[in-house]
Amino acid sequence: MQENVITSLTNGRVKRLVTLQAKSAERLREGVFIVEGLRELERCSAAGLEIAEVYYCPAILPQLPAVQCDAVFEVTQPVYEKIAYRGGTEGVIAVVKTRHMSLADLDLPEHPLLVVLESVEKPGNLGAVLRSADAAGVDAVIVCDPLTDLWNPNLVRSSTGAVFSVPCVACSSEECIAFLKERGIAILTAQLQDSELYYDTDMRRATAIVMGTEATGLTDVWRRAADAHIRIPMLGTVDSLNVSVSAAILMYEAVKQRQ
Amino acid sequence: MQENVITSLTNGRVKRLVTLQAKSAERLREGVFIVEGLRELERCSAAGLEIAEVYYCPAILPQLPAVQCDAVFEVTQPVYEKIAYRGGTEGVIAVVKTRHMSLADLDLPEHPLLVVLESVEKPGNLGAVLRSADAAGVDAVIVCDPLTDLWNPNLVRSSTGAVFSVPCVACSSEECIAFLKERGIAILTAQLQDSELYYDTDMRRATAIVMGTEATGLTDVWRRAADAHIRIPMLGTVDSLNVSVSAAILMYEAVKQRQ
Repeated sequence: MQENVITSLTNGRVKRLVTLQAKSAERLREGVFIVEGLRELERCSAAGLEIAEVYYCPAILPQLPAVQCDAVFEVTQPVYEKIAYRGGTEGVIAVVKTRHMSLADLDLPEHPLLVVLESVEKPGNLGAVLRSADAAGVDAVIVCDPLTDLWNPNLVRSSTGAVFSVPCVACSSEECIAFLKERGIAILTAQLQDSELYYDTDMRRATAIVMGTEATGLTDVWRRAADAHIRIPMLGTVDSLNVSVSAAILMYEAVKQRQ
Repeated sequence: MQENVITSLTNGRVKRLVTLQAKSAERLREGVFIVEGLRELERCSAAGLEIAEVYYCPAILPQLPAVQCDAVFEVTQPVYEKIAYRGGTEGVIAVVKTRHMSLADLDLPEHPLLVVLESVEKPGNLGAVLRSADAAGVDAVIVCDPLTDLWNPNLVRSSTGAVFSVPCVACSSEECIAFLKERGIAILTAQLQDSELYYDTDMRRATAIVMGTEATGLTDVWRRAADAHIRIPMLGTVDSLNVSVSAAILMYEAVKQRQ
C-alpha cells in the first residue's frame, strides 16, 4: 500500500478531485466517480466495485477504512474541506471505477420485480428511488433516456449506497420495452388517466413498474406498451406525489402481494 | 388596492423580505411567513389564509395573481431576484399571516387517520410528508417537539402547498399522547424492533401512525405508549427508508384498508 500526505491546496490531485466532483463529462472521460463517507465507501467495497484511490483526513476520521486499495492518501483538514462535496464531516473520499451494466447483463429470477424510470430529471430523486428499491428487494432499476448520469454525487449520496447494491441499467425506452416484451414482463405504467387502482393490480407476476417525470408524466410510447395503467388515488388538493414516494408505494405493494 | 413599484435593492421592504426568508425568529416575531410561486399562493388563498402583502415581477409573471390582498407591489427583475428564495423563476412572493392550530382546534371524523412525527429534523422531509398526507386524505399531521418551524420556506416549497390544506399542529409528545389516548386513537409506532409487519396491522380503526427521526428513531415515551409496533420489511442492504417514504407507504396502507 502506497501512503502519502497531501498538504497543499494546489496539489494536482486536489485540483483533479474538485473537477471530478463538479463535472460529469470528466467523470465519464475517466470512467470514475466519487464516493464520500465511510458507510458509502464500505457498501461500495462490499458490492465489489474497484476503488482506485482513497483520500482520508485523520483529523476527522482517525482510522483508515478497511477497504482494498493500492493508492491511499492522507490529507490535511483544509485539503479535505476543499475536496469534500458534503461539507467535510465524513473524513473520507474515494475515486471509484464506474461499472456499466447493460440489459443483457441482468441476471433476473423467474418473476422479477423491476422499476423503470423514464427521463427522471433530478439526481436526488433517482437516488431516493434506488434506496427504496434496495429496501423492497427490487431486482433492477432501469433508467430510460437518462438526463442525469448514474454517478452524480448527489445521486450516490441520496441513495445511501443503494446505487452500488441495486443493479442499475441505462438504455433507451425502445430497448427497454423490447427487453420487457421479450421476457414476458408485465409493464405497469403509473398514470392518472385511464387507470386502475394500484392495489387492484396483480404484481405477483413478472412485473415492471414504470414511472414518468413529475412534470410531464410518461410519454406515449410507454402508455401504448403498457399491460396495465395503474394509479395511486389522490384524495386531497395536491395533484401528484414525489416520484420517489410514488415508486416506493408501488414497490411495497408488490412486496406485500409477493409475501 | 394599493399598487406601488419597487425599483431599489435597498428599499426597506426588500431588506425586510430578505430577513424574513432567512430568519425563523423574525417570522415568528412578526407572525408571518413567505410564500413563493403562483400555485402555492393560490393554494394558500384557497385555504383561507390571510395574505398581507404580494410582490410580483411583471417581467416574469405578466398577470397579477387573483388573490385577495390590499397591499400589492410591483418589483423589477433585479429586486425580484434579490427577494426570491427559489431562484427567480416564479415571479410572485407573498407575506402571509401564520395560523396556529392546537390539538383542541382539530375537527376530526369518527375514525381519523393521523400522522405524528417526533422531532423531524429536516424541513424538506416534513414538507414531503405533508404533501403525501394531503394526497392520502390524512385528517391531520401532528409534529411533536419540533426542531423546525412549520413555516420554513423549504418546508412550504417541498409540501407543494399541502402545508395550507392539511391541518398541522405542533405540541409536546406528552400532550399528543394524552390527546390520542383520550380519544381512543390507536398509536402505531414505526420501529424495526419487536414489531409486526405494517400490512398485518388494522388501520381501519381510529389510527395515528407515529414516526421518529431517521437517525435515532422514536423515543421510549412513544414506544411505551404504543398500541402496536409496526415495521416496513427491509429486504436489501440499506437499513432504513427516508422518513417521508416510510410515512407514505404506511398512510397508503391505511387508504387501501379503508377503501
